[in-house]
Amino acid sequence: MAQFTVDLEWQTDKQGRLQARTNPRLLVATPPEFGGPQGVWCSEELLVASVAGCLMSTLLYFVEKFQVPFEAYSSVSQGTLSKTADGLRFTGIEVAVRVTVPDAAAREKAASLQLKEKLEKYCPVSAALNCPVRLALSIAAASDGLDR
Amino acid sequence: MAQFTVDLEWQTDKQGRLQARTNPRLLVATPPEFGGPQGVWCSEELLVASVAGCLMSTLLYFVEKFQVPFEAYSSVSQGTLSKTADGLRFTGIEVAVRVTVPDAAAREKAASLQLKEKLEKYCPVSAALNCPVRLALSIAAASDGLDR
Repeated sequence: MAQFTVDLEWQTDKQGRLQARTNPRLLVATPPEFGGPQGVWCSEELLVASVAGCLMSTLLYFVEKFQVPFEAYSSVSQGTLSKTADGLRFTGIEVAVRVTVPDAAAREKAASLQLKEKLEKYCPVSAALNCPVRLALSIAAASDGLDR
Repeated sequence: MAQFTVDLEWQTDKQGRLQARTNPRLLVATPPEFGGPQGVWCSEELLVASVAGCLMSTLLYFVEKFQVPFEAYSSVSQGTLSKTADGLRFTGIEVAVRVTVPDAAAREKAASLQLKEKLEKYCPVSAALNCPVRLALSIAAASDGLDR
């Protein structure tokens, strides 16, 4: 069992300061769409960020466990908040992950591991959500982009 | 409808860099419990932070809407991750919110609004979770602590 504690102190207007362990200061505010300031993380973005980060950590875990040669990882994630009869609700989070491995052999090894299914099953943040998390995972070989 | 986009780029070891709009740089890493570094926000903390921040934004919305005099807001939140037959799962997030209003009249006004029930219903991040979010809300009057 692991526990994660976060303190929040309201500062001014629609903004507060988050603190956990010795982590850097993190400000949070109502999104600009709802009257908050520009240039500050909003809770909706932090939720999407937590999904994106947890998918990365989960993938890194499996890459290490199965010793897949690995070069790069990036993702673009988008959460959608919609008006419903019950109020504003997240209706979906789309995550497009791009993993780069060195060569075709590593790509085949990664493909054989069914990483998408593993991420969907084992990412605890995605699993904590009741809105659909739609994951697209592409695995590219760096050598494919080189003239040889 | 509102959309929230977050980019993530893996940097090194178990750490990546999150970016959204013009927000400050935010690093994310696997938690220390699972081999990540100290001093970096982990995804589990970002999830708890998103719940904490969204509850604050939702309360600020209602305080403004119903013109409740308001002095301070803070919260302590804790998410619990447990091993289950399906893997690691969030089994609950506890949030203790403390709101301070100037005096007994404001406290009575706030109490009459059933803010706890409103937060539970209208906080979109809490509503996006399938694990229990247990909220405790206390409303104190600043004048109670003064010698008069």
